[in-house]
Amino acid sequence: MTYRFVKRASEKFGLPPGTIIHIGDKLTETVKITLTYYDKNNYTSKEILDIKEVFPFANSSTVTWINVDGIHDIKVIELLGTNFNIHPLVLEDILHTTQRPKIEDFGDYIYIVLRMFYYSSRSGEQETKPEILSEQVSLILGHNFLISFQEAGGGGDIFNPVRIRLKSAKGRIREFGADYLTYAIIDSIVDNYFVILEKLGEGIELLEDELLDNPTPQTLEELHTVKNEIIFLRKSIWPLREVSSTLLRVDSNLITKNTQMYIKDIYDHTIQVIDTIETYRDILSGMLDIYMSSISNRMNEVMKVLTIIATIFIPLTFLAGVYGMNFHYMPELSWKWGYPLLWCIMLLIGISMFSYFKKKKWL
Amino acid sequence: MTYRFVKRASEKFGLPPGTIIHIGDKLTETVKITLTYYDKNNYTSKEILDIKEVFPFANSSTVTWINVDGIHDIKVIELLGTNFNIHPLVLEDILHTTQRPKIEDFGDYIYIVLRMFYYSSRSGEQETKPEILSEQVSLILGHNFLISFQEAGGGGDIFNPVRIRLKSAKGRIREFGADYLTYAIIDSIVDNYFVILEKLGEGIELLEDELLDNPTPQTLEELHTVKNEIIFLRKSIWPLREVSSTLLRVDSNLITKNTQMYIKDIYDHTIQVIDTIETYRDILSGMLDIYMSSISNRMNEVMKVLTIIATIFIPLTFLAGVYGMNFHYMPELSWKWGYPLLWCIMLLIGISMFSYFKKKKWL
Amino acid sequence: MTYRFVKRASEKFGLPPGTIIHIGDKLTETVKITLTYYDKNNYTSKEILDIKEVFPFANSSTVTWINVDGIHDIKVIELLGTNFNIHPLVLEDILHTTQRPKIEDFGDYIYIVLRMFYYSSRSGEQETKPEILSEQVSLILGHNFLISFQEAGGGGDIFNPVRIRLKSAKGRIREFGADYLTYAIIDSIVDNYFVILEKLGEGIELLEDELLDNPTPQTLEELHTVKNEIIFLRKSIWPLREVSSTLLRVDSNLITKNTQMYIKDIYDHTIQVIDTIETYRDILSGMLDIYMSSISNRMNEVMKVLTIIATIFIPLTFLAGVYGMNFHYMPELSWKWGYPLLWCIMLLIGISMFSYFKKKKWL
Amino acid sequence: MTYRFVKRASEKFGLPPGTIIHIGDKLTETVKITLTYYDKNNYTSKEILDIKEVFPFANSSTVTWINVDGIHDIKVIELLGTNFNIHPLVLEDILHTTQRPKIEDFGDYIYIVLRMFYYSSRSGEQETKPEILSEQVSLILGHNFLISFQEAGGGGDIFNPVRIRLKSAKGRIREFGADYLTYAIIDSIVDNYFVILEKLGEGIELLEDELLDNPTPQTLEELHTVKNEIIFLRKSIWPLREVSSTLLRVDSNLITKNTQMYIKDIYDHTIQVIDTIETYRDILSGMLDIYMSSISNRMNEVMKVLTIIATIFIPLTFLAGVYGMNFHYMPELSWKWGYPLLWCIMLLIGISMFSYFKKKKWL
Amino acid sequence: MTYRFVKRASEKFGLPPGTIIHIGDKLTETVKITLTYYDKNNYTSKEILDIKEVFPFANSSTVTWINVDGIHDIKVIELLGTNFNIHPLVLEDILHTTQRPKIEDFGDYIYIVLRMFYYSSRSGEQETKPEILSEQVSLILGHNFLISFQEAGGGGDIFNPVRIRLKSAKGRIREFGADYLTYAIIDSIVDNYFVILEKLGEGIELLEDELLDNPTPQTLEELHTVKNEIIFLRKSIWPLREVSSTLLRVDSNLITKNTQMYIKDIYDHTIQVIDTIETYRDILSGMLDIYMSSISNRMNEVMKVLTIIATIFIPLTFLAGVYGMNFHYMPELSWKWGYPLLWCIMLLIGISMFSYFKKKKWL
Repeated sequence: MTYRFVKRASEKFGLPPGTIIHIGDKLTETVKITLTYYDKNNYTSKEILDIKEVFPFANSSTVTWINVDGIHDIKVIELLGTNFNIHPLVLEDILHTTQRPKIEDFGDYIYIVLRMFYYSSRSGEQETKPEILSEQVSLILGHNFLISFQEAGGGGDIFNPVRIRLKSAKGRIREFGADYLTYAIIDSIVDNYFVILEKLGEGIELLEDELLDNPTPQTLEELHTVKNEIIFLRKSIWPLREVSSTLLRVDSNLITKNTQMYIKDIYDHTIQVIDTIETYRDILSGMLDIYMSSISNRMNEVMKVLTIIATIFIPLTFLAGVYGMNFHYMPELSWKWGYPLLWCIMLLIGISMFSYFKKKKWL
Repeated sequence: MTYRFVKRASEKFGLPPGTIIHIGDKLTETVKITLTYYDKNNYTSKEILDIKEVFPFANSSTVTWINVDGIHDIKVIELLGTNFNIHPLVLEDILHTTQRPKIEDFGDYIYIVLRMFYYSSRSGEQETKPEILSEQVSLILGHNFLISFQEAGGGGDIFNPVRIRLKSAKGRIREFGADYLTYAIIDSIVDNYFVILEKLGEGIELLEDELLDNPTPQTLEELHTVKNEIIFLRKSIWPLREVSSTLLRVDSNLITKNTQMYIKDIYDHTIQVIDTIETYRDILSGMLDIYMSSISNRMNEVMKVLTIIATIFIPLTFLAGVYGMNFHYMPELSWKWGYPLLWCIMLLIGISMFSYFKKKKWL
Repeated sequence: MTYRFVKRASEKFGLPPGTIIHIGDKLTETVKITLTYYDKNNYTSKEILDIKEVFPFANSSTVTWINVDGIHDIKVIELLGTNFNIHPLVLEDILHTTQRPKIEDFGDYIYIVLRMFYYSSRSGEQETKPEILSEQVSLILGHNFLISFQEAGGGGDIFNPVRIRLKSAKGRIREFGADYLTYAIIDSIVDNYFVILEKLGEGIELLEDELLDNPTPQTLEELHTVKNEIIFLRKSIWPLREVSSTLLRVDSNLITKNTQMYIKDIYDHTIQVIDTIETYRDILSGMLDIYMSSISNRMNEVMKVLTIIATIFIPLTFLAGVYGMNFHYMPELSWKWGYPLLWCIMLLIGISMFSYFKKKKWL
Repeated sequence: MTYRFVKRASEKFGLPPGTIIHIGDKLTETVKITLTYYDKNNYTSKEILDIKEVFPFANSSTVTWINVDGIHDIKVIELLGTNFNIHPLVLEDILHTTQRPKIEDFGDYIYIVLRMFYYSSRSGEQETKPEILSEQVSLILGHNFLISFQEAGGGGDIFNPVRIRLKSAKGRIREFGADYLTYAIIDSIVDNYFVILEKLGEGIELLEDELLDNPTPQTLEELHTVKNEIIFLRKSIWPLREVSSTLLRVDSNLITKNTQMYIKDIYDHTIQVIDTIETYRDILSGMLDIYMSSISNRMNEVMKVLTIIATIFIPLTFLAGVYGMNFHYMPELSWKWGYPLLWCIMLLIGISMFSYFKKKKWL
Repeated sequence: MTYRFVKRASEKFGLPPGTIIHIGDKLTETVKITLTYYDKNNYTSKEILDIKEVFPFANSSTVTWINVDGIHDIKVIELLGTNFNIHPLVLEDILHTTQRPKIEDFGDYIYIVLRMFYYSSRSGEQETKPEILSEQVSLILGHNFLISFQEAGGGGDIFNPVRIRLKSAKGRIREFGADYLTYAIIDSIVDNYFVILEKLGEGIELLEDELLDNPTPQTLEELHTVKNEIIFLRKSIWPLREVSSTLLRVDSNLITKNTQMYIKDIYDHTIQVIDTIETYRDILSGMLDIYMSSISNRMNEVMKVLTIIATIFIPLTFLAGVYGMNFHYMPELSWKWGYPLLWCIMLLIGISMFSYFKKKKWL
């Protein structure tokens, strides 16, 4: 999964820039388009089938939110692009689902790309290990409207809280414009990072305990997986710092002063997320060293005990060998107490070697 | 403990921004509010039960310090917020106890978040190993007033020296305004970092001795713990550098020129703390290598000795085996001095191998 | 291959600056020059033999693209340089094929050096392992003309899509000037990086599986090769970030505003390429540690099993030795059940040691 | 020693800022104060007992240098502070001997803190290993006067060359003002760093030879010590870069243009010192890897030889065991040449195994 | 050699700044001074014995180049300094041969220090391994004159190409002023770095092959040497980046606009050199890991084979021991086919163990 961000890029090679082709997992389901428009007093939200229904909302007094769930229907994107006057390069970026988070100010609208994460174990089917999946979210903030594009729709319920707040007029969300709605959506995505990090943190804690108690090659493999997940998250979230700081300083009348204060909050949260990721990286890199030491310690313990057993018996076996020799003249052999005496000697040697090793703390 | 800074963040997921909910350890004790007001000549400090008592002090000629010990009573925070005109996002941050240290200038007041550290072994109960605990401190510096919020109250005695200086009018503290009081409180928090670092430093020194004298798997585990504690401290203290430098350059009439000179001092101390943390990191990372070498050296010593013992006896056992053979025609067996001669030969072989190993410095 | 970037530099040592000598692989094939000129309605492209044919195009109303495939014919370069008024240092740089990517604004023209990558396994011949090869591309963008120089011509088909778009007037390419053509060529080079990275990524994934399943010394060697390839790519692509950002901010009337928007796209892609390279580096550095742990784990497993076998038999052999001794008085020897009893004892010892090791998880 | 820089900081915890208490090694000897004043023609230097003698020199036409050797007499510091108008925070810093090097411009005077290093083996007593000790030097440069504070006085002879040059009017020192004197003192401190580094470099060279020839656990310990010394030096010298660059750009009439040219020299030297420290760090980090490889190589050599001896004798012992069996029907036993034949076979086996191992380069 | 850059610094300790003493290898040969003056049409170059001959050239209409080969004759330096009005600190720097590359603009002249590298194996004598040696080059560029100082003269032929171009009026060198000459000399020094890097690169390639084919402790030692050479080169070349970029931006009428274009070339080359050094560092650090893995892989192979041999024979020896026992009642001993049967069993055990190990891929 980790390497997905460069996969299929080759399909695009050689095409003119601004060519609108979809780079990503091909899906056959129909695209789900939700049209929501509201002001302080009214709120309407409905699923629409024909994209043309949204065209009148390009210039409307209410705040309009068009959410496109699934981007594999190029026609929908193109029609939206023409009607809302979106630059072809932006449309290309929306469809090319391996974008780096970025923000671009086109004057009439601001284009923002983000990455959303969720765990794979949504469905009821039993999966051994939930995997971190990601989805590209594109936002186009214009005058009084916001168009949001979600890649596959698998992580769609992340927007639900925003929808509920809109519906119930909870908080101040209905009083403000499309910029505040944009903030609310970005905020819900960033908040969700904490949920992912929390789960990752728990996993790291478990791994840590396993590491010190009973490290196995399996532990190593999991460590490697978590490490790559962190690398992957880091790559996707790090640019967000720049995005949110640009958003904070953007000189556009699309964003009101009031909303900017809230954007500062997003910036703070992003820094916190990045801090935590860096901390995890530090801890994980320490853990690999611990793993190696731990494995080698256990191995050494085993080898030491085994070697000591061998070392104690080797001289004894030698003695037994000596009295198994067939020399004609071996006086000890005819002693009456020769045999029990040798047993005593051998016991003595064994015990003294054992206590010597014990004293030396080799055992 | 280390991962606490992302725990429970998920509880907040999906709530509108500015929602005042308490993220942190739930406590049932009542919140302790201390109201202190003073000028050059007078000083009054009392614990109050009803938060409304402090309202008149929003505009007072004396310097007012309201210390809220425990932030789990949301009502108190809300009432303070309304009366002192605090932005909802600030109230949210005060309650969300996993903040990164930061400073925000709201014009009418400055909001500062810090992290305070203390060792867990406060109470008389015997604990095997004191743990580093942390607590979020929020400061709101307004005109002639300072409101401070402490998370759990466990590290509350860090403010005591400030209280005593206020009471006894020791130093210049009573002559200056709320900005100097803010400085005094931050200074006592930063000073306390040195106490923590000193203890950590002692622990590292002990570990270092243990490492070179008698490394055990236990040492490794402690090394790992100390390393994570350093990572944790670093994460919490590093942003303080920015906070203090912002405080130094803040263009607000809330901070007098005289106090700024003292803030420079905080900045210097913060840099010193960070320097020391970095130094510890360097030393610790070197120590893990030493540990590994040390363990492997000791192991090698043991294995070498054991292998040498085996190596000396194996040829001797072979000889004994040879003369235990039952060939009919083995002239040596009937020699009169055969047996003692063989003993001599075996002794000779043993001694010469031993001295060869000795000469080669293998023993 | 990796070290090629400093090879043969010594040939140039001691020559005056601006000396036009070719540093690179000497080739004997003739240089292939393609002259293309077009405007919105017309398009002509032909291979020419005499460089002088292109001279009239220095001042032409159509957009002219002169592509020089192979730079070992110094004469061609010199004649072009004189006619198009190119600075001798630029000509020197074009020939010196180990340039670092850079951009230089000479007022009348902009000089850009890039590096193009392709895999060696182009031809049908069977090669065990395709190698990453690279080629220097120099671009000179002037008023209405673009001159491009390719080193060896091995990677020449990377420009083909641009040619096809020009011919078929697909996209907007024929409507814009030489600056857009320059953009299109750089874009096709950068797009090609993704193809290379995708292949590398697949290789890394395969290596990773091999690493965890069945690591061999061969794996190590491949790991080392991939690592050096990444280092090599990184060195060549990293400066592109600066090149594209300079191109974006260049204050030259050679580049129109419209094209600059597209150049932003190149910048974004470059950052993405660099991000991916850094991610690969991180993953690879982790993989070496995994390799070492993995190898040492497997080795330990083998050694442990072998040592345990030895450890079980050593005490048994000792017992057999004891009853092979020739003492006259050894009562056990004459017992009727002595021999089977000993077998039982030895079996018992063997089994109990085995189960002890099993219980201790040593087996 | 390494951790000294945070020790005893706790003593200060809870005291008001600007409290003048001495943090450092308590000494009982009296403080030695040297008063020196000079101009181009005259030079007077004397040790004084009563600090009040220096007060008239706060405004004098000659250049005055007051050197305070030992800072444990708080009274002296306080009196100097009052008379020369020094800010209490500066006095606090002078006494708190774990300062980070810094420079502060107070308008009327500039305050500089530095760290001086020397080896412990000053006295004639034999010490096994000289240790790097450090001492804090505080400089207060005012109009026509310089006050210098040395911590313990153990490294005091570092200033001697300056004194001698002053006395003998060697160089230009007497012609310039207090700023040049300040420069001369800082220069002598920085020059001394080279002496320390030279000794450290020699130590590293010795260690390196030891490492490749005959590494012992002792070598590891020394490596660790040198590494920590480098970390310690680095921590203390790194901030000097900023100090000297600030001094270079300081906009104060206390420093003449002529002296600034010399300060540039200090800056250059500081960079050189830092470069060298970084180089040592690089070399040392490489050395630990070499140590590990070296130790493991030697160990492997030993184990290999021993294992090979065992491996050769084990099959031979087996053969001897076979012919020690008591089967009634073993034809070989009654052969006349059985015994010598077996010897030959065993010799043959031994030799062929030995040469096989030799051929495989295992020996 | 590596540590030479701090050696002998102690000799200077305690001397007044600007003291002209020579820090470096003391030589007894006379200093070789070459005076060259030229304009577009004329060129004169001669070796002079009395330094006073050059004095009239301080103000001459021709371009003058004074090359001083060997700096141990302090008198020569002093006389030059007085006549050409050079600051004492510059003279001190020229003599102190462990300078960090730097550039200083003194208005009337620009002072540049560089480091030149060459391999020791110049002379015909056979040396086992050429060593990288270095020499400090100081350049003073004034109006119409350039004074260059070379430390030991061992690497003097690096300037020869410049001399030849001057003599033969090849290139543009005679048409331009002293600034272009300065550029030409720096360029020849930087070009020479590529020669050094090329040789180093070849050495690294050889080491790499050795590493994967047949690593020995010798390989490790060489790796360590190359690594330290890289560290040494890096330390000396890295500051050149700043030097050349300063030279590029220097606001002095000593450097003409035309020459600045060439200086850009030096800057580019310096970056390329630094890039290559960093690449080498990366590759080398990877190689140490490979070395360790490689050594440990080979060792493991050996140990595994040996242990397996022992493991196969130990149970067989046990069996032989069993039938060497002297129990009176051992039915197998009197079986007719007992002995050959046992041989068969033992062969069977041996073969099945061998094939088991083979199947498990342990062999």
